[in-house]
Amino acid sequence: MKRKDALALDRADPFSKKRKLFKLPKYKIYLDGNSLGVLPKASIARVKHLVEVEWGQDLITSWNEHGWWNLPQVIGDKIAKLIGAVPNSVVVADTISVNLFKVLSAAITMRPERKVVLSDSGNFPSDLYVAQGLSRFLTGKVDLKTVEPEQIAEAISEDVAVVMLTETDYRSARRHDMQAITAKAHSVGALVIWDLAHSAGAVPVDVMACDADFAVGCTYKYLNGGPGAQAFLFVNPRLQQSAVPALVGWWGHANPFAFSIDFVPADGVRRFQSGTQGMLNMVALDAAMDAWKGVSMERLYAKAVKQCAMFTELVEHQCGEFGVSLYGERNFHQRGSHVCLQHPHAYAVIQALISRGVVGDFRAPNLMRFGFTPLYTSYVDVFDAAQHLHEVLSKRLWNKKKFLTIQSVT
Amino acid sequence: MKRKDALALDRADPFSKKRKLFKLPKYKIYLDGNSLGVLPKASIARVKHLVEVEWGQDLITSWNEHGWWNLPQVIGDKIAKLIGAVPNSVVVADTISVNLFKVLSAAITMRPERKVVLSDSGNFPSDLYVAQGLSRFLTGKVDLKTVEPEQIAEAISEDVAVVMLTETDYRSARRHDMQAITAKAHSVGALVIWDLAHSAGAVPVDVMACDADFAVGCTYKYLNGGPGAQAFLFVNPRLQQSAVPALVGWWGHANPFAFSIDFVPADGVRRFQSGTQGMLNMVALDAAMDAWKGVSMERLYAKAVKQCAMFTELVEHQCGEFGVSLYGERNFHQRGSHVCLQHPHAYAVIQALISRGVVGDFRAPNLMRFGFTPLYTSYVDVFDAAQHLHEVLSKRLWNKKKFLTIQSVT
Repeated sequence: MKRKDALALDRADPFSKKRKLFKLPKYKIYLDGNSLGVLPKASIARVKHLVEVEWGQDLITSWNEHGWWNLPQVIGDKIAKLIGAVPNSVVVADTISVNLFKVLSAAITMRPERKVVLSDSGNFPSDLYVAQGLSRFLTGKVDLKTVEPEQIAEAISEDVAVVMLTETDYRSARRHDMQAITAKAHSVGALVIWDLAHSAGAVPVDVMACDADFAVGCTYKYLNGGPGAQAFLFVNPRLQQSAVPALVGWWGHANPFAFSIDFVPADGVRRFQSGTQGMLNMVALDAAMDAWKGVSMERLYAKAVKQCAMFTELVEHQCGEFGVSLYGERNFHQRGSHVCLQHPHAYAVIQALISRGVVGDFRAPNLMRFGFTPLYTSYVDVFDAAQHLHEVLSKRLWNKKKFLTIQSVT
Repeated sequence: MKRKDALALDRADPFSKKRKLFKLPKYKIYLDGNSLGVLPKASIARVKHLVEVEWGQDLITSWNEHGWWNLPQVIGDKIAKLIGAVPNSVVVADTISVNLFKVLSAAITMRPERKVVLSDSGNFPSDLYVAQGLSRFLTGKVDLKTVEPEQIAEAISEDVAVVMLTETDYRSARRHDMQAITAKAHSVGALVIWDLAHSAGAVPVDVMACDADFAVGCTYKYLNGGPGAQAFLFVNPRLQQSAVPALVGWWGHANPFAFSIDFVPADGVRRFQSGTQGMLNMVALDAAMDAWKGVSMERLYAKAVKQCAMFTELVEHQCGEFGVSLYGERNFHQRGSHVCLQHPHAYAVIQALISRGVVGDFRAPNLMRFGFTPLYTSYVDVFDAAQHLHEVLSKRLWNKKKFLTIQSVT
């Protein structure tokens, strides 16, 4: 493949007009949108308005006048379309860890006679910490059991209260079979929580088609909501009247402004809200969701598959002799939208790349991770990133005391 | 008192230079800073930089380069100075409900043999909801008991695990005696959590002097952090190595970037962080804290006491005949920085005031609440607000179908 072939792919790419909706960092090839998505142009004006007009002038009346109060549901419905959820089943609030805690505590309560929360060792560590924290608090009433990702299906037994998994592995990019695992769990009476942090906006998922019980996910990665933007959570409509989280608050009350001293859970998913939400991040996210209008997740995923495969082929072809290899899932139709490469000097290599303006990230112990976010990643970005990696490896630039300073990457 | 007397007080007011640090809403007398504080000028530039440079250009590297990662502790130390806390004992994260849940769950775990969480019926309802949610989740292992505020001290007995109170009542403005109640609780082996939502930045409190175990508080009221800005929590240093919340996450891990699958709590208060925080709100709050440089809480409180007393006197003198009266605590040296008035048509009256640009808020069933935030509230604001109230009441303007449109209030 030549650079002109990548340029030709960009010219034919129906998503190239979406790229124009983002303020891309200058002099960089940004392949870390799976960690922090880039800035949507619409968010700039929206945040400015929030600060200077809504907060600055209208102040407290903005809760109604500017729709602050309803934003968690409004944005939730926008995200719902990307994950196969129905309206009024997704809400945006808090962090992914807090939301996972909420749905996990609700699920445990619904299976009081069962002791096991089942997960896998490839899950994002913070998810496991949440389950461990709950287990410790309940002094052994439930225990977290982790198995290897491949052993999940067979480990689902009748003592399992909740299966808690991340759909796309943050390192290997391996995707779990949501449909099969959810069905297996339901067949023995267990509930399932899916973490869609590396899935929402990256790969097609359908929480209703697989009848997931709960899901949580992140908005600052593929959804470009901004640093630390609120997370989302999904509650299947068939559970919305029976599930109650351990962590509640006035935003989840049936009648919050009555200021009654007794908690009465709101109908529907709203009961999974608790406290007042940060509106600066919330409106940035709301504006970011505009970019998803008319996006087919299947088509976007097809581009991601092509970019991941293209990058891997270029790297293997050009750099295989320099000790770099693909980590994790190879089947490009069963994996997420990022590629991890292993290399004995991964940390130094990624630093050398970053100093040249090619931004990926390092994941312990020896992984370089490159995220492809096809809403704004071009094919020529992918091509150029592979060339930079070749240059760094072939010239052993990672071994320099001082890396090259940031330069234009063309 | 004449208007010129109020103007004279403003000329002599040492805090009048602080007022210039804020972008005050035009054509309004804003007396709702106890619900949502006004916009600090410093926050405008800081948020713009965050969005356009840190997020827009530097992206993922900003976690280190722009100090995002440490902001929860950095801001925590700034707030610590206002509440009598020592460095490294306050952290900013999540919402007040989530933080209350964290410290309450930690406290319950530290008193496993005790069944009662004690609070009062004047507490902010969401705090009670948090305790009720925990109690429900623990199926009766602990129960929330609420008594009248005046009965708290005598209700503290040896079956009490945790006393959970709000220092300043959000309606009556009555302040609890932190020192005496904390001492009483400790004398029977109970722990104490203080909610400082209406105290931090409003009245002098000293969590170390009274040896409080835990505290939580709000930053979008008197601290002007912006709509829904993150809350804070305090953990007394003597408990920091033994207290562990039920809700944890990777930001509270001893070594978050090792991505170990086992949770190991960080040393100190940092273990009370859980997930990734929204940086747009966080930097707005950080900039807002600049306004507190050199502020003596005792002096600020003296101004608040004067403003609350002045407003009450003016209202009682001018409007007493129109069915309005003070609600709650009358001793102006034992109360918070807001005044609640009761009136049979409180909702209509407050709407009429708001339509004239005098912004207070309504609290069910019959209260009008006016917050005095002496960092930027002037004496003439207080004087004029009382005159508007007189006009609305004496002319029964609240009884109009249509209120006057917003107009300049001079």
